Formats: sequence, C-alpha cells, structure tokens
Amino acid sequence: MSLSIRNQLPGTVLSIARGEAMATVRARLSGGGQITAAVTLEAVRELGLAEGSEIRALVKSTEVALATGQVSGLSIRNQLPGTVSSVTTGEAMATVKVSLESGDLTAAVTKDAVDELGLTSGTRVTALIKSTEIALATA
Amino acid sequence: MSLSIRNQLPGTVLSIARGEAMATVRARLSGGGQITAAVTLEAVRELGLAEGSEIRALVKSTEVALATGQVSGLSIRNQLPGTVSSVTTGEAMATVKVSLESGDLTAAVTKDAVDELGLTSGTRVTALIKSTEIALATA
Amino acid sequence: MSLSIRNQLPGTVLSIARGEAMATVRARLSGGGQITAAVTLEAVRELGLAEGSEIRALVKSTEVALATGQVSGLSIRNQLPGTVSSVTTGEAMATVKVSLESGDLTAAVTKDAVDELGLTSGTRVTALIKSTEIALATA
Repeated sequence: MSLSIRNQLPGTVLSIARGEAMATVRARLSGGGQITAAVTLEAVRELGLAEGSEIRALVKSTEVALATGQVSGLSIRNQLPGTVSSVTTGEAMATVKVSLESGDLTAAVTKDAVDELGLTSGTRVTALIKSTEIALATA
Repeated sequence: MSLSIRNQLPGTVLSIARGEAMATVRARLSGGGQITAAVTLEAVRELGLAEGSEIRALVKSTEVALATGQVSGLSIRNQLPGTVSSVTTGEAMATVKVSLESGDLTAAVTKDAVDELGLTSGTRVTALIKSTEIALATA
Repeated sequence: MSLSIRNQLPGTVLSIARGEAMATVRARLSGGGQITAAVTLEAVRELGLAEGSEIRALVKSTEVALATGQVSGLSIRNQLPGTVSSVTTGEAMATVKVSLESGDLTAAVTKDAVDELGLTSGTRVTALIKSTEIALATA
C-alpha cells in the first residue's frame, strides 16, 4: 500500500501498557530515540503487538508541531530533535521538512508559525508529536 | 449548528467499551461499513450513548489520511474504501474529495502526498482515520 | 522554547481521572471556561500534574474546528465561544483567528468550510477541540 501519511518511522516495540479501552505502546526507533503511541486496545490485539514486534510509527504531517529552543514541561511524549531541511510556504499553511536521526519528517504548520519561529533551512528544531496522533503499522 | 468539520457520517452505535478515562464506541455507518471512535468516558455519559443510539461520526479533514493499494497491518481502525472525485492543490497543502459508500469525505493532505501517490479524479483509495480523531454527535 | 503550536491557553488543573493507559485532565482557563485534555498517564506522572497545577493547554491550529449557531449533542468536550477576528485564505486551506474570553485562537480549516459557514471578521463562532488533541505544558 502507498500512504498519504508522510512520516513513517521504523522501530521495535519495547513495552505495552493496556487499559480497558486504550493502550500505550512504547517503541525504540531504528534510527535512535523512542516513541509512545496511544492506540485502541483492539488495534494492539488485532495487530498482535508484543514486546519485540517490528513496527512503523505513522504520523500525518498535520499532527507534527515544531519547537525551537529547549523543550521542557510538556505532556507531549514524543520529542524528536532535528534540523529543518526545507520550507514550502503557501498563503495559509506551510510544510516544513525536518531531518531527524531516525529519518525525515514533514510538518504541516501555519505560515504564521514559520514566520514567528523564523524557520528556515538549517534551523534546529524539536519535532513534537502527541501519543494519540501516532498510528502503528506492522512491518 | 453549522460545523467547519467537513466529514459527517451518520450511523448507529453497535457497542461501547468503557475504560476509566476513555471509551471506544463502535458504530455501523448508514451507508455501510463500521467505525470506531475513542472519546472521553464523560462524553459517552453526557450524550447518553448506548447500543442503538443514532449518531453522526465527525472527522476534521486534516485528520483523514489516504492509502492507495491494499491496506494491512495498520493500527488505524477506520478504513473506508472510496474513489477520489476531485483534488484542489495549493502551494503546501491540498484537499482531496473522496466518494465513499457511506457519503463524501474531504481529506486535507500535503501537496507532496498528492504528487507522490498520483491522486487524481478516479483514483481508488482507502480513507484512514485514527479512532482518536473521530468525534460523535447525537442525531 | 518557542512552539509552532499557535494556541496556548493558561489555566489551573481542577481534577484528573486516571485510567490504566490514559488520563483525562480537567482545567479551568485563566480567561474563563474549562477544558478537558486526554493525555497519557505517563505524561501526568512525569509532569507531576495534580489539582492546582498551573498549566498551559496547547492545541495545534489543525485540531481546532469551528461551529456557528447553537452547539449541542457533541462528544467534543471543549467548546469555547468567540468572535472571528481575521481570515486568511489559501487555495486549499484557510487560517481563521478567533478572539476568545481566554485569549486568541487560530484554526486551520478547509477553504470550503470558510466559504460554506460564511466566516468573516465579526462572525460569532464556537471553537471545538477534541480532548485527545489538547497537550499540556507546565507553566
């Protein structure tokens, strides 16, 4: 299958916390770093996810936020450091490509955010992704 | 009320799995197919949702991803097959209209995704929506 | 740190409902009104959130939907009334700035939504934000 989801980071499941309705899945990314995904318990069951499962973490570009400077005190579990490689700006929205240790990431943010943060090729950023915004695919 | 949320699919609640904080609600869509929504337990209580409740599944366009080809091994619970009816492309973003069995859907994806997947009127796609991205309205 | 996340509303934690994997955090906004955020239990622990904690509710613009007219029967927990202050329209997407009691909010919605709802400076709207789309930062 080909997905419109720009961001697909390969990794391995480290642990799973199961609730009644939801589960959080922690994975080590192949390129370095860890991610946490909050998915339905049903998805964990149907994909047969367990410690050691090979997965890809899928994140829509619209779900990626960017921070410049030191990040602290954020509930957002997934904080991936990288460098802006390019910025494409429209009238209302912009797409920002970020090089991570674990691969490339595209963030769709408002044009205002690009302007105010002064994002341009070479800017050091942290990509922020809420756990609820990460989907998982088995490899 | 009028909503900016483009995607509103009518259906009927089949079952509800209640956790301490969250609940997953499974519904049959009037046009065919099923969806799963992860909402707060409080929302289930306040809307009085139960088996048989008539609902509309609400999904912001920015939350819809698209896949071409066979979809498998995905944690994304909601996979609705359809056909692209039109594509509007901006500099950074694009909106893709998809005809589903259960109605029409708009997806806001990056222009890059449209280009790389070759999305155009007539392309067969599967619309993908994470359960956490579906809100519910009582009919 | 500087965040691409446009929407940062200060508030105080009122209560926390803990599940096994997820938690819902209810907060009173400094400017008036309340919000509910669904975050991972781990985030609640690591941020040391408790009743009385000072927080900022963070919401990406792409996660904000808008409604005109009376809102009812919606699972979306967060409904903040306001007035449109400006609209910037691209080919596919638009950004809408809304003045709330508790501050300013930017919503990234489709151009179609702006046209169909007739959104323009002065339009009374309700900003709608699903609990799963709100992240929290400690102040």
